Amino acid sequence: MHAARRARLAGALREHEAAAALVTWPVNVRYLTGLASSNAAVLVTATGEAALATDSRYLETAQAVCSGVEVIEDRDVAGALLKRGPGAARVAVEADHMPVGLFQRLSAEHAGLNPAGGLVEAVRAVKDEGEIAALRRACAITGEAFSLVVERIAPGVTEREIARWLEAAMVELGADKPAFDSIVASGPNGSIPHHSPSDRPVERGDLVTMDFGARYDGYHADMTRTVAVGPPAAWQRDLYDLVRQAQRAGRHAVRPGATAHEVDAAARDVIAEAGHAGRFGHGLGHGVGLEIHELPFLGPGRTGRLEDRVPITVEPGVYLPGRGGVRIEDTLVTRGDGPELLTLTTKELLVL
Amino acid sequence: MHAARRARLAGALREHEAAAALVTWPVNVRYLTGLASSNAAVLVTATGEAALATDSRYLETAQAVCSGVEVIEDRDVAGALLKRGPGAARVAVEADHMPVGLFQRLSAEHAGLNPAGGLVEAVRAVKDEGEIAALRRACAITGEAFSLVVERIAPGVTEREIARWLEAAMVELGADKPAFDSIVASGPNGSIPHHSPSDRPVERGDLVTMDFGARYDGYHADMTRTVAVGPPAAWQRDLYDLVRQAQRAGRHAVRPGATAHEVDAAARDVIAEAGHAGRFGHGLGHGVGLEIHELPFLGPGRTGRLEDRVPITVEPGVYLPGRGGVRIEDTLVTRGDGPELLTLTTKELLVL
Repeated sequence: MHAARRARLAGALREHEAAAALVTWPVNVRYLTGLASSNAAVLVTATGEAALATDSRYLETAQAVCSGVEVIEDRDVAGALLKRGPGAARVAVEADHMPVGLFQRLSAEHAGLNPAGGLVEAVRAVKDEGEIAALRRACAITGEAFSLVVERIAPGVTEREIARWLEAAMVELGADKPAFDSIVASGPNGSIPHHSPSDRPVERGDLVTMDFGARYDGYHADMTRTVAVGPPAAWQRDLYDLVRQAQRAGRHAVRPGATAHEVDAAARDVIAEAGHAGRFGHGLGHGVGLEIHELPFLGPGRTGRLEDRVPITVEPGVYLPGRGGVRIEDTLVTRGDGPELLTLTTKELLVL
Repeated sequence: MHAARRARLAGALREHEAAAALVTWPVNVRYLTGLASSNAAVLVTATGEAALATDSRYLETAQAVCSGVEVIEDRDVAGALLKRGPGAARVAVEADHMPVGLFQRLSAEHAGLNPAGGLVEAVRAVKDEGEIAALRRACAITGEAFSLVVERIAPGVTEREIARWLEAAMVELGADKPAFDSIVASGPNGSIPHHSPSDRPVERGDLVTMDFGARYDGYHADMTRTVAVGPPAAWQRDLYDLVRQAQRAGRHAVRPGATAHEVDAAARDVIAEAGHAGRFGHGLGHGVGLEIHELPFLGPGRTGRLEDRVPITVEPGVYLPGRGGVRIEDTLVTRGDGPELLTLTTKELLVL
């Protein structure tokens, strides 16, 4: 599994005419070797060989999990690998992750290190079926937690309580932990896309947006639902129906070969036609996997085409300052015969 | 509060003869402005003025929480601030955080950006009393969770179950969330300092090491205790007593003015004298605050002196491959009249 991933990276290196990649971002190291740590680096050559360096805290685990990889003990994980590497002149480093200070220190000893963006991330975007199975389970846990918690939402309950219930339910159902800090935004707070749960009690007449997810075996689910507390006003129902329609249009545009901006546009156009063009200020979605936000990204300025077996979120929203907002988000996977929906929770407007 | 922090940073900039600092690391942005986000930057000048840029997701929150700071909406948060800044020639950027790719992109338009390490981190190391109060609460929650869970540990319970109980108890007691992925290492797994909780059931005769903590109001507690399941063997009790003695020596060396390596040595020498010099492969401790690992670090090669009001961990361990290990960790705060201990849980060897 990890060897196959390194082989795909080696192929990308040959395309880029690089001799090797020095990978230091912990998620990418885990992806390529299986070692989860806060201090490790792996050097993968264009011929597919790999060496990993880590410090004493992770050494025993590294020796146990990293098959087919030479393991070296050194605190200076990047420096140690470069000293033994194939010559730095054609070694790619991670442009989006390696801190400029480390780059300058390494470059002082090894001329010609070459920052390259997204080499491992591009490999990670396409998942193997084991990864998709982990995401499927993460999404199932997320949906089950929503079902358990949603019936407890009532006037007087605070945003923070709802967030805690969701997170506790996910862990109880088998999650490693929450995939990210949950968002619970009620009433006027709903106009803040990334609102932190507050002590505001939910009131009758509120819309409540919940954006949360489970991490399972390292893989991140992401789901958003907006519910109504008490019968919704006409504007609330209209807003919900609009976002639901946009979300459906976005989902239907997800297929291998589609461009990132055309999937985004499929949903965005629905919102713009309803006169809310300025009220949807973020991208339509993003890849999920070992990180909660990873390649590919769906947005107006985004390039590239979706490939097969790419898990991605579709999450349009409309935010009306002072009034509230609606966002609906599923995680799905591109498949040749139509997307596989991993988020199975209803998108009917739930009235609590 | 945030203005006082920016004033301290401005003082450091004047010492470094820098015109401004461009801060993009989310924790540092939060520290200087109060805004918690995944995409924001703040430019602080040597005269103490500040401007913050963020994207639409965080704009409303930024306008609400960032007092005394000009708020700009732009997705390219670093680029937007440099365009309006005091000239890049003397603008410090974060050497340990700014990715080399971003640095190269910004440098192409703004000559002379200057990577500097730890500017904001050095300011953060010394806490104000509000921060210490948050840490005190985080440590209290952590200790209470330990008390609730420790009596449930018995043969047959798995490492993973213990980790989940600890984490659920902390959230129930008011934590934002766990401060980091909990470590629960039983029996032979105890020789792996950063062991991930497994499905291994605890057995009679095991030592069990638990390293965990609560995050409260953004601040991270860190505590480790090792307990015995059933009466300990002589070697286990000896190992425990040794580590406890080393931990006490380390704590007693913590005072404003002490050097980072002499505090480390106070504990390390105890372990070396007992013949285990090679079995304590990590540093003695680290600062805690908005991050779980932050300045200062205590270790053999570490320089610098502790200042007043610096929260820090003291966590020696001895790890015997194939047999097990012991680690004992408290969080304490440097004070002129002796350290304030924030971890109040007993360090007697608990026999369950």
